[in-house]
Amino acid sequence: MAIAKRAIRVRHIWIGGDEPCICAPVVGADAGQVLGEARQIVEKKPHLIEWRADFFEAIHDEREVAATAKEMRMIAGDIPILFTVRSEREGGRPIPLTEEEKMRLFETVCQSGAIDLLDYELVHEPYVPAVRELTRRYGVRLVLSYHNFDDTPSKEELVAKMRQAEQCGADIAKAAVMPKTRGDVLVLLQATEEARQEVEIPLITMSMGSLGAITRLAGGLFGSTVTFAVGQQSSAPGQIPIEDVRTALSVIMKYGQ
Amino acid sequence: MAIAKRAIRVRHIWIGGDEPCICAPVVGADAGQVLGEARQIVEKKPHLIEWRADFFEAIHDEREVAATAKEMRMIAGDIPILFTVRSEREGGRPIPLTEEEKMRLFETVCQSGAIDLLDYELVHEPYVPAVRELTRRYGVRLVLSYHNFDDTPSKEELVAKMRQAEQCGADIAKAAVMPKTRGDVLVLLQATEEARQEVEIPLITMSMGSLGAITRLAGGLFGSTVTFAVGQQSSAPGQIPIEDVRTALSVIMKYGQ
Repeated sequence: MAIAKRAIRVRHIWIGGDEPCICAPVVGADAGQVLGEARQIVEKKPHLIEWRADFFEAIHDEREVAATAKEMRMIAGDIPILFTVRSEREGGRPIPLTEEEKMRLFETVCQSGAIDLLDYELVHEPYVPAVRELTRRYGVRLVLSYHNFDDTPSKEELVAKMRQAEQCGADIAKAAVMPKTRGDVLVLLQATEEARQEVEIPLITMSMGSLGAITRLAGGLFGSTVTFAVGQQSSAPGQIPIEDVRTALSVIMKYGQ
Repeated sequence: MAIAKRAIRVRHIWIGGDEPCICAPVVGADAGQVLGEARQIVEKKPHLIEWRADFFEAIHDEREVAATAKEMRMIAGDIPILFTVRSEREGGRPIPLTEEEKMRLFETVCQSGAIDLLDYELVHEPYVPAVRELTRRYGVRLVLSYHNFDDTPSKEELVAKMRQAEQCGADIAKAAVMPKTRGDVLVLLQATEEARQEVEIPLITMSMGSLGAITRLAGGLFGSTVTFAVGQQSSAPGQIPIEDVRTALSVIMKYGQ
């Protein structure tokens, strides 16, 4: 049974199909590190690779970013690449770009043909239509995301974020939140379960930290279509190595429904 | 971190300690089958063995039951044995015993020294004090249980069942319910999480069927201290083979908190 009502195909994989996808982040500071990580990650065969370009020191240099993305494309083979510039307020590294400069960077990177998906944060609402327009122009899928490293909003608020992502034309809605209690972990799963009934696009949700780690393993049962796992380096608290995620999923998805 | 406030030691294991225990049921119809199953299960090294004696055709013959229990004791070595006569209304096989006859059977089996824990259903409330008294007399731990094969009661009702078990003097409270939706699965986990904060005795909870299978793997994070897994034969819907439970737990308990 498909996880999302409207599963999407990106290269050879389905996001929102029968099984959750594993996405491994790349967080290198320069091209050498980024491509080295990508090479090692590819050997672990994740479904997706996310380049967290906010870790990239030359983020201000569009041509360097695009050139590195193209080299990553060669390394990745048929594995789709998700390009993400996480903002500091949503848990990313501080970068010197304004939103306007980010737009230009996105345009260059999308135009390069190197990437398959782009992550953009819902919080920059005024810029979302432009990002939607440019990603569509280049055939790049858009993940509209919400991150909260402080706490877990109410179930209603979380569902509203995912609904908002869909209304803004996202191909995928993402919500990553921090739990303070085990109850918060269950709130995130409930919100996912409710959103999947209401929202048709694939969802990516997680409760961060070790308290929320179970959502990275069992989220697929409740409607999360992608789980972020460590290939080489973690990009957020609570991420689990790919090998262990795969081991747990092999049991969880075999018996779960 | 211990799963329950008041972990209990039974032979060499802790119930409610740092890790959830795995309990494998024995469901044979005669002594040969029961002991054959027990032998094969012991090789898989579960923490506990449950003899579901309602499957035993000679359940009306106290001496046969006690003799079989004693033989199982020899086979089990230091693995604790949980003795259960599940009633038909709570998902067991139809048996010809009245509650008074069950009491006599419990007395004989407890007296035999073969068993370590006894399961009794909360629904037979008038008989609970007598069962508590006799198990205490023989140093047998009492699991007071609630099963619902039709649906999942509200969180409040589930917490109340576990509170009731503690108030009746149980050493362990058990609640097994059937989900109709994924939301029901989360209700069971929420109830477990809430009850663990209120109730001091170890809890055993599960959401049955394939929809609830995840609770047999992740329940330990929310306060369930024992998971029932298939050694030789399943005794309830949704049970997963021991090997697979162990595999999933090795990841879930390593990263979860």
